[in-house]
Amino acid sequence: MKLIYQGKTKDVYSLDHNQVLLKFKDDVTGTDGVFDPGANTVGLTIDGAGKSGLKMTKHFFELLKSQGVNSHYVSADIEEVSMVVKEAETFGKGLEVICRYRAVGSFLRRYGAYCEEGQPLDSFVEITIKDDERGDPTISEDALVMLGILNNQDYQTIKELTKTICNAIKVELASKNLELYDIKLEFGRDKATGEIMLIDEISGGNMRVYQDGKYIAPLDLEKIFLG
Amino acid sequence: MKLIYQGKTKDVYSLDHNQVLLKFKDDVTGTDGVFDPGANTVGLTIDGAGKSGLKMTKHFFELLKSQGVNSHYVSADIEEVSMVVKEAETFGKGLEVICRYRAVGSFLRRYGAYCEEGQPLDSFVEITIKDDERGDPTISEDALVMLGILNNQDYQTIKELTKTICNAIKVELASKNLELYDIKLEFGRDKATGEIMLIDEISGGNMRVYQDGKYIAPLDLEKIFLG
Repeated sequence: MKLIYQGKTKDVYSLDHNQVLLKFKDDVTGTDGVFDPGANTVGLTIDGAGKSGLKMTKHFFELLKSQGVNSHYVSADIEEVSMVVKEAETFGKGLEVICRYRAVGSFLRRYGAYCEEGQPLDSFVEITIKDDERGDPTISEDALVMLGILNNQDYQTIKELTKTICNAIKVELASKNLELYDIKLEFGRDKATGEIMLIDEISGGNMRVYQDGKYIAPLDLEKIFLG
Repeated sequence: MKLIYQGKTKDVYSLDHNQVLLKFKDDVTGTDGVFDPGANTVGLTIDGAGKSGLKMTKHFFELLKSQGVNSHYVSADIEEVSMVVKEAETFGKGLEVICRYRAVGSFLRRYGAYCEEGQPLDSFVEITIKDDERGDPTISEDALVMLGILNNQDYQTIKELTKTICNAIKVELASKNLELYDIKLEFGRDKATGEIMLIDEISGGNMRVYQDGKYIAPLDLEKIFLG
């Protein structure tokens, strides 16, 4: 297996047949040693973080598969802390698609003049470009189209897919008395078919989840949700 | 005349018949004593800045009127450095609508991974909310609608009006060998009729203009353009 990319929280190895293997690491993003899923730097290493994230990811990708959602997921090996996925082409240098159910985080920091902290939001979707250096700025449909990153049809497809996927995740979490406040997805194009599909991972590190009004940290979330 | 609002660069007095008087000041926005049209603080006072801005504003509002564009402009008195306008209601706490013809300023700072400095942009329109404390963040159509600031139809109206108005300004500047890179407009609703109209001012302080590849500062622009 040839290592083709070292990410902040995953290493990527090439496989045959348009597939790659993602090896989840115990490195988590954060700032000054404090875990922060939204941060762009590796903040610290937590034993078991990779396996915990993979368990969640496997659970959600299999749930979504059962609901007919197209994703890059092929199989997961929890003991090896690895996942086989279909190879994808990103849009531009990569996009992050956020779906918000309550006003917290950067949404509140930007639009606090027009909303209260924790106010319900109507499955609000926004896209940011992956650009650590420029702080992952938000980008509008018009700008995505003008800069040749997405066309209007792809934008609408991704927006609708995001609402469908995040709603399924929200409902699943709610079955354990957990409330999804916001979540970040990534999409790519299947290298073999050209179809838009959900990529990356779906774990505590990509979402804000609360229980009885209290924020649940990613590793605790996995224990509560799958334990 | 009753003073009803003191702005950073204009004072506002109430008049009868749904009209107000705007008194242009010599205070200009900037940071650390350096003039910067995009700044949110009054940086310095320049003798004649108010009169210079009003001359430009009068010229452009009269040009737009001759082209059938609905604005708040009623009349201007250059000697008194004041302008009579129709009273307007802002959208929320006020929006700024930017139209970009070249990639400079905050567009380049955000999307520099996908464009070169000065690259032509296709009359790209984006909206920011007026919120000094939060750095005037950009906001998408979906967010404007969700937060009750604009509805979809008003958004589209403002976007199309912006392109029409800015194109007229661009053509007018080009007649003096001046190139418009980007410009900021404001819109409001006519208190008397409820119609959407162009408000605020149209002067060097709201636009970036170049001549032969060199940036022209607002007061120099007025001299070149009207002198």
